[in-house]
Amino acid sequence: MNEGKKEGSLLDKYGFPIWLFPLFFLVVVLFAACTEWDPQFGVDTVTTVGGHHVRKQVSNTWESGNVPYTMYMDAAAMCVLGFGFLYVFSKYYVWSGVSTNFFVCGFCFLWVHVAKAIVNAIFEGEFHKTKLNLNEMVTGCYITAAVLISLGAFYGFASLSQVILVCLVEPVAMLINEHIVLHYLHVKDAGGSLLVHCFGAYFGIAVVCGMRVRAEQLPETHRTTSYFSNMGAMIGTVVLWMFWPSFNGVTFYNDVTLQGRIVMNTYLAICASCTTAFATSILAHCGKLEMLEIQNATLAGGVIIGMICPFDIQPWTAVLIGGLGGVVSSFGYAECHPFLEKLGVTDSAAVQMLHGIPGWLGAIFAALACFGSNHNYMYSYETQWSTTEDHHRTRAEQFGFIILATVCTLLISTVSGLITGVLMNQPCCPRVDEKDMLIDHDFWNIEDIGHDPRIKPSHYNRNV
Amino acid sequence: MNEGKKEGSLLDKYGFPIWLFPLFFLVVVLFAACTEWDPQFGVDTVTTVGGHHVRKQVSNTWESGNVPYTMYMDAAAMCVLGFGFLYVFSKYYVWSGVSTNFFVCGFCFLWVHVAKAIVNAIFEGEFHKTKLNLNEMVTGCYITAAVLISLGAFYGFASLSQVILVCLVEPVAMLINEHIVLHYLHVKDAGGSLLVHCFGAYFGIAVVCGMRVRAEQLPETHRTTSYFSNMGAMIGTVVLWMFWPSFNGVTFYNDVTLQGRIVMNTYLAICASCTTAFATSILAHCGKLEMLEIQNATLAGGVIIGMICPFDIQPWTAVLIGGLGGVVSSFGYAECHPFLEKLGVTDSAAVQMLHGIPGWLGAIFAALACFGSNHNYMYSYETQWSTTEDHHRTRAEQFGFIILATVCTLLISTVSGLITGVLMNQPCCPRVDEKDMLIDHDFWNIEDIGHDPRIKPSHYNRNV
Amino acid sequence: MNEGKKEGSLLDKYGFPIWLFPLFFLVVVLFAACTEWDPQFGVDTVTTVGGHHVRKQVSNTWESGNVPYTMYMDAAAMCVLGFGFLYVFSKYYVWSGVSTNFFVCGFCFLWVHVAKAIVNAIFEGEFHKTKLNLNEMVTGCYITAAVLISLGAFYGFASLSQVILVCLVEPVAMLINEHIVLHYLHVKDAGGSLLVHCFGAYFGIAVVCGMRVRAEQLPETHRTTSYFSNMGAMIGTVVLWMFWPSFNGVTFYNDVTLQGRIVMNTYLAICASCTTAFATSILAHCGKLEMLEIQNATLAGGVIIGMICPFDIQPWTAVLIGGLGGVVSSFGYAECHPFLEKLGVTDSAAVQMLHGIPGWLGAIFAALACFGSNHNYMYSYETQWSTTEDHHRTRAEQFGFIILATVCTLLISTVSGLITGVLMNQPCCPRVDEKDMLIDHDFWNIEDIGHDPRIKPSHYNRNV
Repeated sequence: MNEGKKEGSLLDKYGFPIWLFPLFFLVVVLFAACTEWDPQFGVDTVTTVGGHHVRKQVSNTWESGNVPYTMYMDAAAMCVLGFGFLYVFSKYYVWSGVSTNFFVCGFCFLWVHVAKAIVNAIFEGEFHKTKLNLNEMVTGCYITAAVLISLGAFYGFASLSQVILVCLVEPVAMLINEHIVLHYLHVKDAGGSLLVHCFGAYFGIAVVCGMRVRAEQLPETHRTTSYFSNMGAMIGTVVLWMFWPSFNGVTFYNDVTLQGRIVMNTYLAICASCTTAFATSILAHCGKLEMLEIQNATLAGGVIIGMICPFDIQPWTAVLIGGLGGVVSSFGYAECHPFLEKLGVTDSAAVQMLHGIPGWLGAIFAALACFGSNHNYMYSYETQWSTTEDHHRTRAEQFGFIILATVCTLLISTVSGLITGVLMNQPCCPRVDEKDMLIDHDFWNIEDIGHDPRIKPSHYNRNV
Repeated sequence: MNEGKKEGSLLDKYGFPIWLFPLFFLVVVLFAACTEWDPQFGVDTVTTVGGHHVRKQVSNTWESGNVPYTMYMDAAAMCVLGFGFLYVFSKYYVWSGVSTNFFVCGFCFLWVHVAKAIVNAIFEGEFHKTKLNLNEMVTGCYITAAVLISLGAFYGFASLSQVILVCLVEPVAMLINEHIVLHYLHVKDAGGSLLVHCFGAYFGIAVVCGMRVRAEQLPETHRTTSYFSNMGAMIGTVVLWMFWPSFNGVTFYNDVTLQGRIVMNTYLAICASCTTAFATSILAHCGKLEMLEIQNATLAGGVIIGMICPFDIQPWTAVLIGGLGGVVSSFGYAECHPFLEKLGVTDSAAVQMLHGIPGWLGAIFAALACFGSNHNYMYSYETQWSTTEDHHRTRAEQFGFIILATVCTLLISTVSGLITGVLMNQPCCPRVDEKDMLIDHDFWNIEDIGHDPRIKPSHYNRNV
Repeated sequence: MNEGKKEGSLLDKYGFPIWLFPLFFLVVVLFAACTEWDPQFGVDTVTTVGGHHVRKQVSNTWESGNVPYTMYMDAAAMCVLGFGFLYVFSKYYVWSGVSTNFFVCGFCFLWVHVAKAIVNAIFEGEFHKTKLNLNEMVTGCYITAAVLISLGAFYGFASLSQVILVCLVEPVAMLINEHIVLHYLHVKDAGGSLLVHCFGAYFGIAVVCGMRVRAEQLPETHRTTSYFSNMGAMIGTVVLWMFWPSFNGVTFYNDVTLQGRIVMNTYLAICASCTTAFATSILAHCGKLEMLEIQNATLAGGVIIGMICPFDIQPWTAVLIGGLGGVVSSFGYAECHPFLEKLGVTDSAAVQMLHGIPGWLGAIFAALACFGSNHNYMYSYETQWSTTEDHHRTRAEQFGFIILATVCTLLISTVSGLITGVLMNQPCCPRVDEKDMLIDHDFWNIEDIGHDPRIKPSHYNRNV
């Protein structure tokens, strides 16, 4: 996306539209081939009754009392508004932060429906069109959330053209992993601790690794926040925080008992992580708060409780686990992240500390819960909403399968991310120079970034 | 609203409260005369049963499972938060942008109920009070949205007193047009492509014309954006974008099949326009993005799909139409808008490019759909949710009626807007000098706009 | 929270984590002792049917059609996003404003469940665990809202450690007052005019009094707003404004008639106060608008209508009362607040003008409504949703009881607030020096506040 700067080739300058327009028409064609309305929206046969045209209605998920559309909208708001504004924290990358996130939402919300048809065809051996309905829109949110998390790892390092590549590959890789975990290992993950957060974080870190970007190559002043960019980022944090219970609970249409418990466990956990993140941050920074930790670690309760939230745990357990999430995440930002960057593991927005570590930690808690004395989660497999299938496992076996799911997720995310990162470095894909990373100046028709003295205000009176 | 500056008359200084307070009491009186509770909220008769007072409940729309209140709230959020923050994009007009929008929401949400009773009396020949219920609140959102769109056309040019005039006239004009289109031409418009977006845009442009403001008269530096004003505007964009499916679908209480299809078609179209707007913007600006286009053209899919979204089109069609909307709108901002301003057609926030052109384009698509081979939309009139009335039209006739509705909307909006603009220029209405346009400095108790060196920070410790 | 500055003791520096971590573990223990799942979420007994584990579902409030979860989410958004961003208005206190609010939400949402069990035990004489369900989450929002209002009174004056103390005490005091008003005086307060707004405001003012902070001791430049901090604050205002109908109506699960009327009365009142606040502000400031009044007085309609909104008043009455709220509040900000500060009544964000005065004014309107000729509110006690209990009161008696409830609320809030304020001044609780009040610089790991020339940008590249 450094197209505007170089004298360079047409590809450098117009790489994004050159990629995007043909791709958009491909998406339209693939939509025609891979999607159709769920009959509940499409049948709509206009029958003729006594000369009048009358439409026959069928019952559908839309009218369910379990507030599915509302919860879907909360989850969509987390993607577009929540992640979008969380990513304006960087002083000179405000416009690109929110806009890249916005573009990814628009593109992925479409692409996931195609990706789903493809992945289903791979595993089932025969091709079925994706039936578009509210469930599919929710699935779109989940997958897009994973892509947005990955975005954080290479935040500011990639051109829009490179981001398209991630948008194309990651949903496919994620759906493959999800299929293996759900249908082969029979491990359920209500809030996506593993399937969304952990997968997204390590995919993103692997992408950075594949792109061979290292933090110390960037101009030092670019990796800076400002007073107002951080105010903007707090919008994102607060939106993510308050809607998290909806995100974890949205898929539970048909089971209000579980949905209620999920919402409440998530609510308790995220309150707890908010509380402990503040205290940990002050402890780690000699009596002062660190803004990036408040923006991120306060949310860790929602990630860490994701897999265990439908379990029949007691309220105090949810508070304790959530509080632990806040401590681990805040401490990770303060101590582990700088250490890892010194070791060469670049992670632009430190997504590992919010999504990666709390993600697999949540899976481990869920695995340990299999050994709990409470009969209700004797087999965590069975207490996770789907009790109709027939699996007889011991507690230790189910523990093992959850650990296996974690390893599988780490493996698939890292390998697919690494491949994507290497692909992003190929010459056909416009790259960003290190000196142009994390600064809007070269990607936008803009003359005034903050108080940079080099530049004059831009005029939107474009006929001048 | 330049009242504070001039030594001038009392009217110049206190024009707004002089207008507003009597008007407010008039509204209270008109409310008493023109509105009443829908019986479902008002009957509430306290009967006495065995010495106890017991309230008798009646069933009402509130308890419907079709999430009406939720969707209403999304639509209201688009008006107040969405348009409000979209209108902070101008560097020195941040406070006035969001506040004028806020005032218009507060006033119009009330006034529409009065306006509706008046317009209904005109057409029906007899007077009925407006029965306040959730449907009326939704109607309030739709009408207010049209006023807010018009606001964009003369954004920064009008005093608050002049804005009141628009708030009074436009809902009446809009309801007249709506009545003609719906009940005489029998053309339905689910998402308001024509009745809301197109009407609002051309009403606003006609107002500017009537006010005889021309862009080149403004101080050049005032028509400027800043890094942070544009961050604020992205809040508005993102809120509008994510809630658009609710806006288009909110009126379909009693028909979940159609509501579901509307929501999904809108969702697909708006994802597509987000995608193509980014690519078009880069293409039009030599490899760089233009912020105003990202803020606006990404939303064009929701406008262009508005009239056709309840039709039984295939998912890929919605993607294609939405994508086209993004291209047209983004290209319009980049190329047509500067050209039109040179011709003397002033449009402060270029609302024609987001609401005007995609609006009538949406109507034309709906008209063309009448010729579609699919039996379901053989008569678009009948496939638009109301099949109970008895109209027998050929495909070509319905095509003609939709075109007629478009012409009617353009005509009524332009004429009523022009008259309003001329009225706004009368001496009884405080005006803004060109040199004070698009700058907060003269409307607010403010001493510090951004980094303007003339001024010191203001103290809210007002007893100093 | 001025820990970072002084050479001082460990308590000065690490006071917050020293207080918070033990407290957090206490909360976990108290959660185990004081809370349990509502059986509707917890019973979830996995019975074994033919070798399969099958979960038995019970019906629950979650599936109600009265949009309870949605309205809860709106109310939660008001607390976290609404109040949070309203409190960024101060130029140098943006981060602390939104973050302190965020911490209070996280902590109070947990603590209220413990507080409720304690207060119930006090009044009922025997101990019952709080049954966690959606109703309790709503209660959490109401109580937290009161704490957030109090926060406004000592906005910028208290350290985070002192804020914890308020979070611990105020919910208990508020629940005691609520119990007395509801169960002894039999006065209902749907939207919390008295129980939430009035209580919160006077508790906060009493805290300032007890802390012995006086406005004139602060460095003058700290009590300042900036162009962008006020833009941020408008996010809060707009969010509070649009969700207010949900806040007032959220508790009315089982009575859609009343819920509908509450939502509509609130909607009318808040539109009216928006309208009149603009006009009053211009009148009070010689033709210019004052931003703090627009941010606050526009909301007064929601406060003043809170107690009377379920009554069977006519729509025009709601408009009139709301409009009056806007005038009173705006005038209060402009004239009374500076006067009171001169008298020594410090109120940092002038919460008395938005929550205090409109709060008890709302109670007086409700009391006066008892004398109304309409049979429906002959006894306001009985027209407030609970008509099953057996109270026979004359109009004058019910009037008297509402006045008594107002006096009781003022008394309990003031006394408990005063005690809390004195406790906050004890040496065990880190305090903020007057010279560090209302400035983020000393509480955050920050080097760049706005355009303060003293300081360089901070780097989030923390391995440097």
